[in-house]
Amino acid sequence: MGKLLDTIHSPADIKRFTIPQLESLAQEIRERLIFTLSRTGGHLGPNLGVVELTLAMHYVFDTPQDRFVFDVSHQAYIHKLLTGRREKMDTIRQPGGLNGFMLRTESEHDSYGAGHAGTALSAALGMAVARDMAGGKEHVIAMAGDAAFTNGISFEALNNLEQTKRLIVVLNDNEWSIDRNVGAIAKYLHKIVTNEHVSHLHGSAQRLLEKVGGKAAVNVVRRAEEAAKGLLWPSVFFEEFGLTYYGPLDGHNIGLLIETFKFLKQQDKPVILHAITQKGRGFQPALDKQKKFHGLGPYDPETGETKPAGQKTYSEVFADTLVKLANENDKLVAITAAMPNGTALDLFRPHHPKKYFDVGIAEEHAVIFAAGMATRGYRPFCAIYSTFLQRAFDPIVHDVCLQNLPVVFCMDRGGLSGDDGATHHGLFDISYLRGIPNIVHMVPKDEDELADMLYTAMLHEGPSAVRYPRGTGPGAAVKTHPKALPIGKAEVVREGDDFAIFGLGALLPMAGELADVLEQRGYSAAVINPRFVKPLDKDLIAAYAKRVTAIVTFEDHVLMGGFGSAMLEALSEMQIETPVVRIGWPDRFIEHGKVDALRARHGISVEAALEKLAPWLPTKRRLAISH
Amino acid sequence: MGKLLDTIHSPADIKRFTIPQLESLAQEIRERLIFTLSRTGGHLGPNLGVVELTLAMHYVFDTPQDRFVFDVSHQAYIHKLLTGRREKMDTIRQPGGLNGFMLRTESEHDSYGAGHAGTALSAALGMAVARDMAGGKEHVIAMAGDAAFTNGISFEALNNLEQTKRLIVVLNDNEWSIDRNVGAIAKYLHKIVTNEHVSHLHGSAQRLLEKVGGKAAVNVVRRAEEAAKGLLWPSVFFEEFGLTYYGPLDGHNIGLLIETFKFLKQQDKPVILHAITQKGRGFQPALDKQKKFHGLGPYDPETGETKPAGQKTYSEVFADTLVKLANENDKLVAITAAMPNGTALDLFRPHHPKKYFDVGIAEEHAVIFAAGMATRGYRPFCAIYSTFLQRAFDPIVHDVCLQNLPVVFCMDRGGLSGDDGATHHGLFDISYLRGIPNIVHMVPKDEDELADMLYTAMLHEGPSAVRYPRGTGPGAAVKTHPKALPIGKAEVVREGDDFAIFGLGALLPMAGELADVLEQRGYSAAVINPRFVKPLDKDLIAAYAKRVTAIVTFEDHVLMGGFGSAMLEALSEMQIETPVVRIGWPDRFIEHGKVDALRARHGISVEAALEKLAPWLPTKRRLAISH
Repeated sequence: MGKLLDTIHSPADIKRFTIPQLESLAQEIRERLIFTLSRTGGHLGPNLGVVELTLAMHYVFDTPQDRFVFDVSHQAYIHKLLTGRREKMDTIRQPGGLNGFMLRTESEHDSYGAGHAGTALSAALGMAVARDMAGGKEHVIAMAGDAAFTNGISFEALNNLEQTKRLIVVLNDNEWSIDRNVGAIAKYLHKIVTNEHVSHLHGSAQRLLEKVGGKAAVNVVRRAEEAAKGLLWPSVFFEEFGLTYYGPLDGHNIGLLIETFKFLKQQDKPVILHAITQKGRGFQPALDKQKKFHGLGPYDPETGETKPAGQKTYSEVFADTLVKLANENDKLVAITAAMPNGTALDLFRPHHPKKYFDVGIAEEHAVIFAAGMATRGYRPFCAIYSTFLQRAFDPIVHDVCLQNLPVVFCMDRGGLSGDDGATHHGLFDISYLRGIPNIVHMVPKDEDELADMLYTAMLHEGPSAVRYPRGTGPGAAVKTHPKALPIGKAEVVREGDDFAIFGLGALLPMAGELADVLEQRGYSAAVINPRFVKPLDKDLIAAYAKRVTAIVTFEDHVLMGGFGSAMLEALSEMQIETPVVRIGWPDRFIEHGKVDALRARHGISVEAALEKLAPWLPTKRRLAISH
Repeated sequence: MGKLLDTIHSPADIKRFTIPQLESLAQEIRERLIFTLSRTGGHLGPNLGVVELTLAMHYVFDTPQDRFVFDVSHQAYIHKLLTGRREKMDTIRQPGGLNGFMLRTESEHDSYGAGHAGTALSAALGMAVARDMAGGKEHVIAMAGDAAFTNGISFEALNNLEQTKRLIVVLNDNEWSIDRNVGAIAKYLHKIVTNEHVSHLHGSAQRLLEKVGGKAAVNVVRRAEEAAKGLLWPSVFFEEFGLTYYGPLDGHNIGLLIETFKFLKQQDKPVILHAITQKGRGFQPALDKQKKFHGLGPYDPETGETKPAGQKTYSEVFADTLVKLANENDKLVAITAAMPNGTALDLFRPHHPKKYFDVGIAEEHAVIFAAGMATRGYRPFCAIYSTFLQRAFDPIVHDVCLQNLPVVFCMDRGGLSGDDGATHHGLFDISYLRGIPNIVHMVPKDEDELADMLYTAMLHEGPSAVRYPRGTGPGAAVKTHPKALPIGKAEVVREGDDFAIFGLGALLPMAGELADVLEQRGYSAAVINPRFVKPLDKDLIAAYAKRVTAIVTFEDHVLMGGFGSAMLEALSEMQIETPVVRIGWPDRFIEHGKVDALRARHGISVEAALEKLAPWLPTKRRLAISH
């Protein structure tokens, strides 16, 4: 495998290929992806779906002059293979290697970085308008999955398309986001695709292409669309926004795609090409298990088997707990924004199908919808990753906290997320939530405490957020029934007099390690599990602050505005001048990589804490006397 | 005036009225609004437009059992008049009086609070789904202006409508948001309204109603829609989302509205009623000047004249400066999210029409569109109120700061906004922006410094934000050409040794007053204009911190995560233990009222600072000796 692929150093190299060669190349690329990702993990399914689309785009257009904007951009692996990064493909998502998404700093061919859905049309429109203003000739092509159209930003962009006269939108329709799509738009697209009239004419186009090629086939495609209009108005929806609709088209027919792109390249108007693709195309295990192969860790390249699941993840414990709580509370409902698998709510759904809502990639709607339900006595649990909840910041402020409604934010992937990199780390939620009045913000030390916090949130008559990490925790046994925690009370894990070390959530063990080291050096250190970022346990803080030489805080969050900052505020308010050493992420975006390595590199470590503590360590003798 | 109106104590009272009586009542309500608001100020135009709609809704439905959700809810004055708040209407937006928006704590008839556009459908859907689950019989009616459909959340909600079988959406179409609407949806609605076929049939419906009334007329309305479908597919757009479309209908024909609502009340499916209304109806000055009368201060109830404009507002200085900068910089573009008047960009537009973009109420799109332009060498200035920018938090993080693109956020209404209340105060922007790497955050002390900061932002090769208050400033003369400020450098306004007082932006004068008081008591206090919230001037802070007894910070922002918190972080990092007294807004939502009164009430004052400083004031003598 790889005899054509290995000759490609830049997109120009594929322009000399014949269609059969391109078809062979597509096959080679699939094999390469299946093999490489079996070792690295990554977004296999989405990339297998866009092999021909990406080849055709690079065949017809010329990056970096022409600008490709990929929505989310987890489907950019083929683009990376073709644009000088083939030899580094086996480093994808590995520490120091290629990023799993488009990155402007990684290549001049990466026009625009992304990671969250729904941004491609807006960014591409910005580029097209800039081109129009500057009198440029380049083409701007936005590729977005059908799932991107469940997100409101895509519509805001559609509503503004009139601002340019030239833009190509590729609708990569595989009827899946990460999970199967929900909502009216998905149904609408499905209706177009399954319409007999369209299928028939689409078949004609393919046959015509085989016989005569080119323009004629494109005309048939256009006629398919016109004919369908009478039945289904498939184009009305997009054309009301000023986009001329072409399709639906077989997204794996590379000859047809190339002819179509050549035709679209000549159009002096915004157009949308509706391409039907198959997620996981060419790898049976990925076709059989679409969700699993959307994005995953290493697997067997023959069978698709991954390592057997071991210990339960935080997400799974979350789902188990919610099932329990919903068994006893009629009013509990669970909401996901297109992430039933990622949040593990797919484990909740079979138990409580009527209490389960997937609203699409629509975090703002999810939160306002939850607020609406809460006004009628329901207890909505919104399971949204910390990084995605950023999208619902204003609804959190206005719809939930200002109205003081009991909505629970279950912030999965709180803290560093690892392989996915900067767009997926959940490092800002304390700073963006802490300024908002009325919200209770909890961070569990382990799985059992997560269950307790969910229960506490359910009982609390106001907004709350529970932040828990990606993956597995320490593996604590979960009690049969969770217990309610007193709001705003921290837990003393270990007593001590010289230092007080607060380890928030996943970093509590690190606090313990620091205490051990200090003890070896003759100091005594208390270890405290804060449990609550808001409200803080000020009584406990005051008691320790008055006793110890210094306080240390550990948090899996940026230092600016984080938990340590809250500690400083509390001490300042209480006029206690005990110094605080804060350990957390620095004021820069953190790259992708392994969590442990990144922590060590960026000073989230016992060593870093000791270094920062140094000024207060020699004072032990004096302190001991003054006590 | 008022003989019918003054008999109304609850919505039940209007149900005994005849149509002619309701028409008289509508007239009385208009007179009352025009008179009352001439003294209080408020959203006159939008309320004059929905008098008949609101009357018809209350005639047919029964609040509080039935739930009315008003988008933005600035058009809820008639609803307030009818639901037991008539006698308090002259307190609207006054300190301690009625809120200018719906407020759940104000009345059981206010089902849902709002203030930002686009939330009504999501919240109403949440209520409808809750009703379906609980087996309730009540109706849920969402009223949204056409402008709400330029916002993505409305679409996210539409995409999820299938979750309920029963919901009434009232599209209040006046072709205006605050300024005239932009984009494809606006054009689409306009096409429906101006279609001859529709007008003709709509006329028939009115005549029929006059003759035979009721059901027959509704059938004609329905036929109008069906007939128009053949021409324009007016219903396709909404019906693809599962909403059955009725209209367009004269939103001032109360008889027709009542019959139509009675009909819609019987429907077992989600429906949308497209009502055409006239903003400012019944008050010629408001019809002539739609923008002015959207929301305004006191005016003459005869002529509509307001007090002559005096000193330029910060918004106007912003616009003047942008005109200057765009004169010399080809790449400067200005973007507003449907607020050209509020942000004063309507003063920029005539000078640079091609560099001006109004994207609708679409803050997320605005920011991503700006980022797209910035990748192509443009310098987008996004003028978005501090409170509305909350909606674009994720795009600020990912599209702008992570990609380190030179987009400038011009955050008008930063700080307490006053009359509009909690939904419009801009009290969170420091805390939500401060955690994000790469962003430069500036706050000017006066109009001239605003100009300097805009210029500094234009020259800066990365993201920046400039926060300035609502209304007028100290009236500083603006230089002919702004000068660039050194990034991260504060300005010493006055020297002093005992205390260092940092007054951020609008609160710099308060810092000066405190210094005066301290001086009178024999202390010497430095006064510092921080200019930059990020990056902080750590060198200057260190120099003063080492010299003085205590630092005081004043900020027009919540204390949690704010400027004072940044000060604590900086001192902690530098291991300087100088105490800090922080003055800012407490951890609660702030009600509406006059800025001065609210500051005094919530401890944003010299007195509050002196009280907090008390522990360090008696130390003067000792300090003087130790110096």
